[in-house]
Amino acid sequence: MPKLSDFELVISPLQPPGPGECLVRGVYLSLDPYMRGRMDDRKSYAESVQVGQVMVGQTVGRVVVSHHPALQPGDPVVGNLGWQEQAVVPAKWLTRVDPGRESLSTTLGILGMTGLTAYFGLLRVCQPRAGETVVISGAAGAVGSTVGQIAKIKGCRVVGVTGSQTKASYLREQMGFDAALVWGSEPHGPDRLAAACPDGIDVYFDNLGGSVTDAAVALLNLKARVAVCGQSSQYNLDRPDQGPRWLRNLIIKRAKVQGFLVWDFEEEHPRALRQMRDWLRAGKLRNREHVVEGIENAPKAFVEMLEGRHLGKYLVRLA
Amino acid sequence: MPKLSDFELVISPLQPPGPGECLVRGVYLSLDPYMRGRMDDRKSYAESVQVGQVMVGQTVGRVVVSHHPALQPGDPVVGNLGWQEQAVVPAKWLTRVDPGRESLSTTLGILGMTGLTAYFGLLRVCQPRAGETVVISGAAGAVGSTVGQIAKIKGCRVVGVTGSQTKASYLREQMGFDAALVWGSEPHGPDRLAAACPDGIDVYFDNLGGSVTDAAVALLNLKARVAVCGQSSQYNLDRPDQGPRWLRNLIIKRAKVQGFLVWDFEEEHPRALRQMRDWLRAGKLRNREHVVEGIENAPKAFVEMLEGRHLGKYLVRLA
Repeated sequence: MPKLSDFELVISPLQPPGPGECLVRGVYLSLDPYMRGRMDDRKSYAESVQVGQVMVGQTVGRVVVSHHPALQPGDPVVGNLGWQEQAVVPAKWLTRVDPGRESLSTTLGILGMTGLTAYFGLLRVCQPRAGETVVISGAAGAVGSTVGQIAKIKGCRVVGVTGSQTKASYLREQMGFDAALVWGSEPHGPDRLAAACPDGIDVYFDNLGGSVTDAAVALLNLKARVAVCGQSSQYNLDRPDQGPRWLRNLIIKRAKVQGFLVWDFEEEHPRALRQMRDWLRAGKLRNREHVVEGIENAPKAFVEMLEGRHLGKYLVRLA
Repeated sequence: MPKLSDFELVISPLQPPGPGECLVRGVYLSLDPYMRGRMDDRKSYAESVQVGQVMVGQTVGRVVVSHHPALQPGDPVVGNLGWQEQAVVPAKWLTRVDPGRESLSTTLGILGMTGLTAYFGLLRVCQPRAGETVVISGAAGAVGSTVGQIAKIKGCRVVGVTGSQTKASYLREQMGFDAALVWGSEPHGPDRLAAACPDGIDVYFDNLGGSVTDAAVALLNLKARVAVCGQSSQYNLDRPDQGPRWLRNLIIKRAKVQGFLVWDFEEEHPRALRQMRDWLRAGKLRNREHVVEGIENAPKAFVEMLEGRHLGKYLVRLA
């Protein structure tokens, strides 16, 4: 688990923007579980952040100075500015945010990478059908709770696995899950999951890995689909832990397990965002955010996110 | 591992065929790894064989008596007659074999379930492209060696993992594999597999499971595809053994792992069989069979197949 002492807050002068560059002042910084992976010195789908580098992260903000004709001062933009209050970046790294949008913060959450991860992982990787049972691990996280809500829109029975009774109640009472169960401290997890899925599992959306996944795989139905979105239970381990080998069950069930990233579907993002926005406006999707004030509190909030302390999408309000 | 004392040879009278039934005399009985799974008292994709029941198995034979207009005495047929020299079964359980076929035995092997398993597992589940690296575990088995040959036809680089130097030589020298390595007794298996796959692994066809699969998963390329056909390393265990949890690598590589059965593609079998027959006739596919004489030797041959003692498709010549 990262420690606050792994982070350092540094004040440093900005270079003035050159040709084609913009100075952007951040409004919100997104905190996401994938960032934990960037802190490891091992191979992943992207480069690790080196000691002394600015931590990676997506920011929504406003253009202050623009040396590019496509952007004007005041324009709302989103981009990978890292954990910084202000940054100078090439304009081509920035995407202009639709000014008609309700709130800038949603650009980073339910109408941004978080929401799109849920959308494509569920709808494209798993292709759920009405009446099917969808199980989600790490269900109270920003991605997990969105996956569950989309699955409900599609007419599925939705079961969440989470870390506390508070979160389980939140999923059932506020996010519309049919069932939610607490994993970890309580015994008989696999039996309780089986009881919550009397018709087996057709779709398993995995944010967690470990023993929850072992239990879910044992309950898969014929032609079941598993999307591997995250493996939070493994991120703080030096090496992967051991678990039962369960590939045989994939043969028996003719089941599929697939890893994915939201960027695999980049060409389809605009259409998906329109759909998500319509669902949000129609009240079919609920958005919950956990906003922390000030970049100096980002490390603490990041650790709390990894520990699952609060509900909703984690954001840092900058400046 | 099954023992000879798990089997009993019984001579019992046959009922005469009723309306719509046929008496069939078997010519060859197929021996296959899946049969091991039917000897377990646990859930699989098909019912277990109960103690006292006839062991399941596919047979090619000839009709002796027919009470169905579609079949005549002397017709060659294939069907699930079990480990029996003769059987009375409904005619609808039988498929007439093309009389123009070179050899009855191929109906059970390269032009039967074995060949179709290789064909669909590789071409449909994994969709290999020319130039890609295909790794096969249990590569000298009847399915594995056919997978490798089809992958060569498709222009892939083919690497087999097998259990002995004899088999590795067989794969390289007779089956056209680009490389074959021995797993188990020799150390540094993962390093040797990595050395045999300098461009990583695009397709992994798994007959074995266990440590070979762990090593292969670590070498997967972006968008790699894994077909899970068998898990021979696990079949004789009372419970699955433990291995490193590697799902995180599926996210990093956006890779897919899929279990399948040859029956998932039943509608496409005729077209696939024509293709396989054309390749066989053109000398692009080689067929190797290990034929044992007499049903009394079936249990011993079955154990030898599970132990990987001989090369090629295992068949028992009946009567």
